Amino acid sequence: MATWNNLDTLKAFSQLSDNRDRTDIAKELSSETGAQRVQKYTVNMAEGLHYNYAAKEVNDTILKILQDLADEAQLTEKYEELYNGAVINTGEKRLVLHQLTRGQLGSDVVADGINKRDFYTTQQKNIAEFAKKVHAGEIANAKGEKFTTVVQIGIGGSDLGPRAMYIALENWAKKNNTFKMEAKFISNVDPDDAAAVLNAIDLAHSLFILVSKSGTTLETLTNEMFVKEALKKAGLDASKHMIAVTSETSPLAKSSDYLAAFFMDDYIGGRFSSCSAVGGAVLSLAFGPEVFAAFLDGAAKEDALAKNRNIQENPAMLDALIGVYERNVLGYGATAVLPYSQALSRFPAHLQQADMESNGKSVNRFGEPVNYQTGPLIFGEPGTNGQHSFYQLLHQGTDIIPIQFIGFKNGQCGVDVDIQGSTSQQKLCANVVAQIMAFACGKEDSNRNKNFAGHRPSSIIYGESLTPASLGALLSHFENKIMFQGFLWNVNSFDQEGVQLGKVLAKKVLAHETEGALKCYSELFGI
Amino acid sequence: MATWNNLDTLKAFSQLSDNRDRTDIAKELSSETGAQRVQKYTVNMAEGLHYNYAAKEVNDTILKILQDLADEAQLTEKYEELYNGAVINTGEKRLVLHQLTRGQLGSDVVADGINKRDFYTTQQKNIAEFAKKVHAGEIANAKGEKFTTVVQIGIGGSDLGPRAMYIALENWAKKNNTFKMEAKFISNVDPDDAAAVLNAIDLAHSLFILVSKSGTTLETLTNEMFVKEALKKAGLDASKHMIAVTSETSPLAKSSDYLAAFFMDDYIGGRFSSCSAVGGAVLSLAFGPEVFAAFLDGAAKEDALAKNRNIQENPAMLDALIGVYERNVLGYGATAVLPYSQALSRFPAHLQQADMESNGKSVNRFGEPVNYQTGPLIFGEPGTNGQHSFYQLLHQGTDIIPIQFIGFKNGQCGVDVDIQGSTSQQKLCANVVAQIMAFACGKEDSNRNKNFAGHRPSSIIYGESLTPASLGALLSHFENKIMFQGFLWNVNSFDQEGVQLGKVLAKKVLAHETEGALKCYSELFGI
Repeated sequence: MATWNNLDTLKAFSQLSDNRDRTDIAKELSSETGAQRVQKYTVNMAEGLHYNYAAKEVNDTILKILQDLADEAQLTEKYEELYNGAVINTGEKRLVLHQLTRGQLGSDVVADGINKRDFYTTQQKNIAEFAKKVHAGEIANAKGEKFTTVVQIGIGGSDLGPRAMYIALENWAKKNNTFKMEAKFISNVDPDDAAAVLNAIDLAHSLFILVSKSGTTLETLTNEMFVKEALKKAGLDASKHMIAVTSETSPLAKSSDYLAAFFMDDYIGGRFSSCSAVGGAVLSLAFGPEVFAAFLDGAAKEDALAKNRNIQENPAMLDALIGVYERNVLGYGATAVLPYSQALSRFPAHLQQADMESNGKSVNRFGEPVNYQTGPLIFGEPGTNGQHSFYQLLHQGTDIIPIQFIGFKNGQCGVDVDIQGSTSQQKLCANVVAQIMAFACGKEDSNRNKNFAGHRPSSIIYGESLTPASLGALLSHFENKIMFQGFLWNVNSFDQEGVQLGKVLAKKVLAHETEGALKCYSELFGI
Repeated sequence: MATWNNLDTLKAFSQLSDNRDRTDIAKELSSETGAQRVQKYTVNMAEGLHYNYAAKEVNDTILKILQDLADEAQLTEKYEELYNGAVINTGEKRLVLHQLTRGQLGSDVVADGINKRDFYTTQQKNIAEFAKKVHAGEIANAKGEKFTTVVQIGIGGSDLGPRAMYIALENWAKKNNTFKMEAKFISNVDPDDAAAVLNAIDLAHSLFILVSKSGTTLETLTNEMFVKEALKKAGLDASKHMIAVTSETSPLAKSSDYLAAFFMDDYIGGRFSSCSAVGGAVLSLAFGPEVFAAFLDGAAKEDALAKNRNIQENPAMLDALIGVYERNVLGYGATAVLPYSQALSRFPAHLQQADMESNGKSVNRFGEPVNYQTGPLIFGEPGTNGQHSFYQLLHQGTDIIPIQFIGFKNGQCGVDVDIQGSTSQQKLCANVVAQIMAFACGKEDSNRNKNFAGHRPSSIIYGESLTPASLGALLSHFENKIMFQGFLWNVNSFDQEGVQLGKVLAKKVLAHETEGALKCYSELFGI
């Protein structure tokens, strides 16, 4: 059994703190051995991806200590316990099994009397069969016409991850002739969200997926009623247009209100559910089950790499360790995620949830306050758009914000133009490599306004192209990075008690059970 | 003439620093006088909006010092100089005239031999006439058929602001029968961005707006060629499908490649150009010139409020001062912008540019390094989505991140459902007021995992509904807040030298003029 200790009690962490002199990346990368550094400080990922950290403020001494820290914190042992079915989510006393949706990493995990890998693959099989029938027109609307649109109703993890993955693969699927149905998403309780989506679709040919693990998420149930009213008004039978993704014990599970129900369970948190039925239903319907299977396969391969004890063979663990060094030794408070790929436009928003909801905690696994900073602020937009927006502050602002770049050699659509001797894709790639060097090395100028201090660290994940498999690997990388960082900070990354208080107070407002300031605020909105 | 001094040389700033004891908002808002505080700490904005700062860590003493700081820093005098045409953008030696697009705030401003207010209103008139002809079918495609879609090609300020404003008003316009044409946006040099937009539209009925002040923005010119190739392939005459928004001196201004050209000038920075022809063309085409005029009118009214010396009558200035107090005295590094309105889904992304590109600087107006933090990191997503995402960290993380909420009593679409005794809109509003209190007051729990420390400050801008006029007021509020903060930090908020180095290096990469690390990075992408 691994032992769970606070970061600041670890010997290797003290050593790391003693090495707080930042490696001079400006000097390293602009020196004659700069190219060697770029070649050396790289780790292979699955599906042809690579994690390159040559522009991070580390050197061989720091890396050695990071390896010691990984060993002392028993990171891979804890991962092993997790995938073998230990109760890692101590707050809610639950197993943590999202990796099991995509592969058998260790022993069989039996919970609630069943083999959980069988449970997840059975759901995938059921979804695949259902999706194929929908695509074949065997499951169709009342007039026997094919469904052309699928609409996911869900919020948080039932929205951000699946939506980001859908956007990431939409153009790939169109290009590769596996695009089956357009997908839309309704999440916000703001009625304008649902109204706008319903205005934009052909209701009679739309299939809705209601996603709620508990079957009690207020926003989602409200939007379900919103959609049902619209279907009714259009003279359609809602139960013939709606499926559910929920837990087997939820009130939705056996309701006749749905054409079919597919199941998840309590062992997969919302923000880690893209590979469960939550992502599986909408992605299989949109792109076909084979595409979803390839996505899972890429994630499984990356998950396997995360078992390696050696940080040079475990990119997620190395990324996690460098992040903790930046957060807790160098004192950087935020991380920018900047994909040079329009397809990943909502990937940063998904990571924002996955990371900040997991590690934005102030107490350790035992409920004791910690004496150090935990999860950083995560934000990002696609490059090159960001370059024309907030990069000014990243280059010349008073705070240093570490960056995670992502880039691909090839685009997804395969359409391009050659202008001034280069294609758009080449311009895109030229920009990301130029930014790495600009941030790291800066440029002296006697006009201080045009001076770039440099020393702004970044890493880059790069590969040939964004496919279902490489997307799966990319997602797994970040999920596992978050997990390892949670282990290091000794927090429970798999609950989210911080979202509860607002819910409780909102119910009081709606029940008019308020007084004082809250009553006064409510009255501003006529409640 | 105002004098420009660094923040840390001001007497009032020293006094503020001496008052670094945070006001106990948990105590204040949960006390018997909590409601009074909510009523008292509010400032009227234009168009029925209000800025409420009862949940900010200020008290009457701090507010008195903030007024002194405003006076000592000569904030309104500097604003007066700005709108009267002083060279406030010292780096590029330019006037700063975006407010002049929406109203005459002071004396006539004459530059380059012309009255600039006349120049901007002439452009508005020209755009209005053009838009009306398009809507009437007098300007049409080669077959004489009406244009149904308008596509903006631009990046940075030519994209984020206009796109955010379009999304903010799309459903309002549909509901109010002023929706004329759908708008799309192409920005990223990633060829998949343009390819996806072109796949989704009906080229023969699409009108493109090429937006580039200089006429040399590489991303935009590249995307223009991308679009022209597509038009050519479809057998269409590109010059009959494209207009330009540019400066009068740009190579695009008199080119026969465009149906028409509308002008901006060097006195309006990209991130402040939503009210110029940059936003005017696309918004007038999409919603009609009357809607754009109402938007400008709302902004003009809010601009007028920013002239008030009294911080209780100048919401933008008060917001700016509280922000500086949070940044430079309380030490908070980021600000979350959280609109409880799906229509404002991209408003935070626009503010991210407007704020971070303006005030993410390390040198003052005279090119001297400053000894204090300047612009914070800005990020945000719409509530309630954010509640199910990163709010966990905002509630229970180790860093305090101040929040700017935005909310409206009514939705835009006017469609709603009543579930469990309340409408969706009421649930939305109940959530935002509940969050203010949850962040400020927290909740003690013996289970530390469920404990909320509170003392997390927020403000809220609220109003009846999001209309063209209130959107204009909202935009003006934040533009002026950014301007006042730039005055306080004594930085030049109107240049962006920090974006240059990356461009220079990207050109070198494309020209294969690289060596060492940069060459090595380039080779990873096959360049």
